[in-house]
Amino acid sequence: MRKNGAKAASNPRTLASVTENRLIAAFVSVHKRLKKSYTAVQTNHSGRVQVREPSEGDPLATYTIGIDYGTESGRALLVRVSDGAEVATAVHPYGDGVIDRALPDGTRLPNDWALQNPDDYIDVLKHVVAAVLAESGVKPDDVVGVGVDFTACTMLPTLADGTPLCRLGELRGEPHAWVKLWKHHAAQPQADRVNETARAVGETWPPRYGGKISSEWFFSKALQILEEAPEVYRKADRLIEAADWIVWQLTGVETRNACTAGYKAIYQDGDFPPRAFFAALNPNFANVVDEKMSRKLAPLGGKAGGLSDEAARWTGLNPGTAVAVANVDAHVTLPATGVVAPGTFVMIMGTSTCDVLVAETLHEPEGMCGVVKDGIIPGYYGYEAGQSAVGDIFAWFVKHNVPPEYVQKAADAGRDLHSFLASEAAAQRPGEHGLLVLDWFNGNRSVLVDAELSGLTLGMTLSTRAPDLYRALLEATAYSKRLIIETFERSGVPVTKLIAAGGLPAKNPLMMQIYADVCNREIFVIGSEQGPALGSAMHAAVAAGVHADIAEAAAKMGGLSDVVYRPIPENVGVYDQLYADYLYLHDLFGRSTAEEPGGVMKRLRRLREGDGTLTEVPEVEAGVRE
Amino acid sequence: MRKNGAKAASNPRTLASVTENRLIAAFVSVHKRLKKSYTAVQTNHSGRVQVREPSEGDPLATYTIGIDYGTESGRALLVRVSDGAEVATAVHPYGDGVIDRALPDGTRLPNDWALQNPDDYIDVLKHVVAAVLAESGVKPDDVVGVGVDFTACTMLPTLADGTPLCRLGELRGEPHAWVKLWKHHAAQPQADRVNETARAVGETWPPRYGGKISSEWFFSKALQILEEAPEVYRKADRLIEAADWIVWQLTGVETRNACTAGYKAIYQDGDFPPRAFFAALNPNFANVVDEKMSRKLAPLGGKAGGLSDEAARWTGLNPGTAVAVANVDAHVTLPATGVVAPGTFVMIMGTSTCDVLVAETLHEPEGMCGVVKDGIIPGYYGYEAGQSAVGDIFAWFVKHNVPPEYVQKAADAGRDLHSFLASEAAAQRPGEHGLLVLDWFNGNRSVLVDAELSGLTLGMTLSTRAPDLYRALLEATAYSKRLIIETFERSGVPVTKLIAAGGLPAKNPLMMQIYADVCNREIFVIGSEQGPALGSAMHAAVAAGVHADIAEAAAKMGGLSDVVYRPIPENVGVYDQLYADYLYLHDLFGRSTAEEPGGVMKRLRRLREGDGTLTEVPEVEAGVRE
Repeated sequence: MRKNGAKAASNPRTLASVTENRLIAAFVSVHKRLKKSYTAVQTNHSGRVQVREPSEGDPLATYTIGIDYGTESGRALLVRVSDGAEVATAVHPYGDGVIDRALPDGTRLPNDWALQNPDDYIDVLKHVVAAVLAESGVKPDDVVGVGVDFTACTMLPTLADGTPLCRLGELRGEPHAWVKLWKHHAAQPQADRVNETARAVGETWPPRYGGKISSEWFFSKALQILEEAPEVYRKADRLIEAADWIVWQLTGVETRNACTAGYKAIYQDGDFPPRAFFAALNPNFANVVDEKMSRKLAPLGGKAGGLSDEAARWTGLNPGTAVAVANVDAHVTLPATGVVAPGTFVMIMGTSTCDVLVAETLHEPEGMCGVVKDGIIPGYYGYEAGQSAVGDIFAWFVKHNVPPEYVQKAADAGRDLHSFLASEAAAQRPGEHGLLVLDWFNGNRSVLVDAELSGLTLGMTLSTRAPDLYRALLEATAYSKRLIIETFERSGVPVTKLIAAGGLPAKNPLMMQIYADVCNREIFVIGSEQGPALGSAMHAAVAAGVHADIAEAAAKMGGLSDVVYRPIPENVGVYDQLYADYLYLHDLFGRSTAEEPGGVMKRLRRLREGDGTLTEVPEVEAGVRE
Repeated sequence: MRKNGAKAASNPRTLASVTENRLIAAFVSVHKRLKKSYTAVQTNHSGRVQVREPSEGDPLATYTIGIDYGTESGRALLVRVSDGAEVATAVHPYGDGVIDRALPDGTRLPNDWALQNPDDYIDVLKHVVAAVLAESGVKPDDVVGVGVDFTACTMLPTLADGTPLCRLGELRGEPHAWVKLWKHHAAQPQADRVNETARAVGETWPPRYGGKISSEWFFSKALQILEEAPEVYRKADRLIEAADWIVWQLTGVETRNACTAGYKAIYQDGDFPPRAFFAALNPNFANVVDEKMSRKLAPLGGKAGGLSDEAARWTGLNPGTAVAVANVDAHVTLPATGVVAPGTFVMIMGTSTCDVLVAETLHEPEGMCGVVKDGIIPGYYGYEAGQSAVGDIFAWFVKHNVPPEYVQKAADAGRDLHSFLASEAAAQRPGEHGLLVLDWFNGNRSVLVDAELSGLTLGMTLSTRAPDLYRALLEATAYSKRLIIETFERSGVPVTKLIAAGGLPAKNPLMMQIYADVCNREIFVIGSEQGPALGSAMHAAVAAGVHADIAEAAAKMGGLSDVVYRPIPENVGVYDQLYADYLYLHDLFGRSTAEEPGGVMKRLRRLREGDGTLTEVPEVEAGVRE
């Protein structure tokens, strides 16, 4: 089984003598190579990079596996519980991917739909767990637990035994029988009614969610099933988060994790909204919780059950191996930083950005995504906020707004276009491009919580070039981040330390420096490139009883890299000025209704969408004078 | 001499039977072919396209030549005075082009300088006049007059006999001895002082120029010579517009045309500003008018003199041939449309747009470029306004903001990128792209008159593509145009008819349709592609006594094409809504000072320019945690 043992042994590395400055590059390079060869690399919170060879009989040889279910694929990470060493990782893509045009049988889907096939999740289990065991040589006996995190709200209807309705022959062609992926946005009418009804009946939970819930959330999606496919709703004995469903498949035990229930299903202060509220949405929805869900929630860090015989066969692990209560991918990244103290603001930066932090007390920051007691780390209020597009904006710009000249220059320099534009942009002093951008290219998720907002770029001249605009876009997302942080602090939630996680920080150091300058704060970087999977492996270690709680697991297994971005004082002053103008534009265009002068974006959006009776596009052709 | 006679005769064309819709394409195609072969094509204001062969003894065989001096080259157009038939044209580029980096001897120029070599203007005469005579076969005896138009203010210092100072050996390396081209912008400090002084001493003329004069104007440039090169100023017996200088070279007679004096040298109500005003600018500038210029102005349509023997040798024309008083290229285009009636608003659309119209009465529209009695058509107040970038904005967008995908698509379709993007954009209904743009990419020339303003684009999403932005830019320039027109009307100057001239209209029919929709007015198109040269040929015909005045010359020789763009009613309503938002953004960002919240563009510009002690650009590199 330990087929890479010889290779690993022939390649011992000691980096202690490497100067600190070189450490970063060495770390990245070693890490990449090791990921490929699945040799053990430890990245603990002391910032030291070491490679240690697990050997039989070593008391260190106790492991857990974190399984991270993303949008396109699932990943397993085999981790040593004593120190968080990431021993091996493996990825398996979903066979049906994101189903957003047609079901596998050809049934067409309307716009805004996004489904998945739950059997793809099982397939991941069958491939990735065996792969990390095989590649690492770690024995099943040494794997004491499994943890899972998932995108959310990603939910599905099942029978009482957990069978997904889409597996039933008669429902195979019914879109509502499939998994609704987090980015299924077709339940917007239902979300609107949830929010309107909450206001109308005086529900107290909206401020816990920044004022309103999204079309992505559990009850929006559940209500859509009820109203558009009542027979599916009727046949569904359970409506369940995919995170909890996969744990159910692993253990044979149905649990509901407190994290998704709190952030996605309005579970607050020990209960869901009252029956009367659901009845007001739709009489047949009154008993959704009792008929289709459960009021019994499993705490984070808890053990959902032991691995079933069937799941043991899928994975190659021992039956009875502890399986942790499920988690959300973003939220589980927080302990992977090694820091679970209140005030640590973890930014998971990718196509969008999700921010998580915990606090001792309950506050209601304007326009946050949610606050949930015990929702991230038991014992604390867990807060979530975010930006609906970050990497997506840069990707949009690079793909749709950069002329051939720069594409060619980047190719000539042997660099990808992002890093080429960033290097050009990095040569500028702040303010030099004369531009200011509002980063609402995909609406605003936090503070304003308004999908009708759109982007704005101001200050262009005939001399403006692609690197100028690229830098201005990076800066815009940094202003947005600063405002989220300031909004938390103003509401009483302290933010004492910034940590960046996710895929973007390593790819875009200019962006990170700009964030440090704009926020005038040091920014630390998570040590692991697989934050969610590492966090899940921690939860597994707690479920297995190896660590007492998540805080201990975080301290032992999590950590930061050696990289830290420090504010450059002369930049901070310029960015303070630019941020003041960002705030002016933010409030002017973001806080105006469509009926007020500043509501330009909302009016443009309505014109864009037409009034439902679109006038035919007239052909443009000059007439002839009579 | 008539070497093309046979070719022309073998290619007679009668288009009377062609259907009206086809006429436009046929017109363009015929026109292009004829320009190449120098065969006579008549485009009179009836809209009919005919080709007639001039024959000896034909009473129609009386011609004038219009010479149009542009930024890069000079052009001659040989025109039949009876009907405006454009018989032949020829272009000659300036050998030294625009001198903006170094003098021919290598002397470096500072930023914002733009000079020319006056001998290049003489070279034009030597080439283009002979060329149109040779190519057309028209005899010098049949050419009764020459007219000239020029960019303005383009001015130079000379000796009393007209010798340019830059021809003198000892001043060859002195930049101030050369022609200052219209776009020489280095006299901004002098322009600022002219404006401040005018306000301080209570001069009454600023409202005639929209509130302030530009760095491009005569006294800004003259004052710069005095203050930066006093010996050049002292040696200069004359400071003169290049338009008047070239007429001087043609005739041996120094004249000063009323058009440039009025629009560029603050000649109002019969005189220049008083000596005390010039003395307040600089004591040595007190007598600039009497020492370096002339208080005697020549009216438009007048005869400056007869062709000198030397100029006859340069051109191949007969000595004594009438030479008209000079003109400005934009202003002389108005009669070329055939319409000199009050209310006809002629838009000369190219890289920038210049608008000219005449009225019976004096008004002071906000932020116009200027109003001059007899400045365009004798007997009327001539008004000028403009947009500092139009075609330049589209060119900037196409060059610097369009991704390879569209460049490739356009190439595959065998189209230039402008027309490809326009065809994609034309398939949209107004409002569909959800965008709104402020077109101040090169500042604002009319209404606001503010070079510190910059562009704004609002409404972008991750779905925004190049054709969306291209259309939004076309629309922005249309909103700007509508506002100029409304500003004229609000001040009491009626605008009853829109005519498009210049190079853009034929190239961009979508733009023209958008202008018609946004302004909710029909837009007619000038018949000639050489509006300025045709207008100069008209002035020559008046100077020669063939036509009684410019109005008669315009009626006989000018005209419109068959193309007319009519507003599409369903578009008009949408554009009314978008225009209201344009106005909101226009006033918010355009009318705020840098100290007011809306003055974002001005603050960004200051940050862009730095404070003179630019901080060094710090290298972006992540630190390492201690």
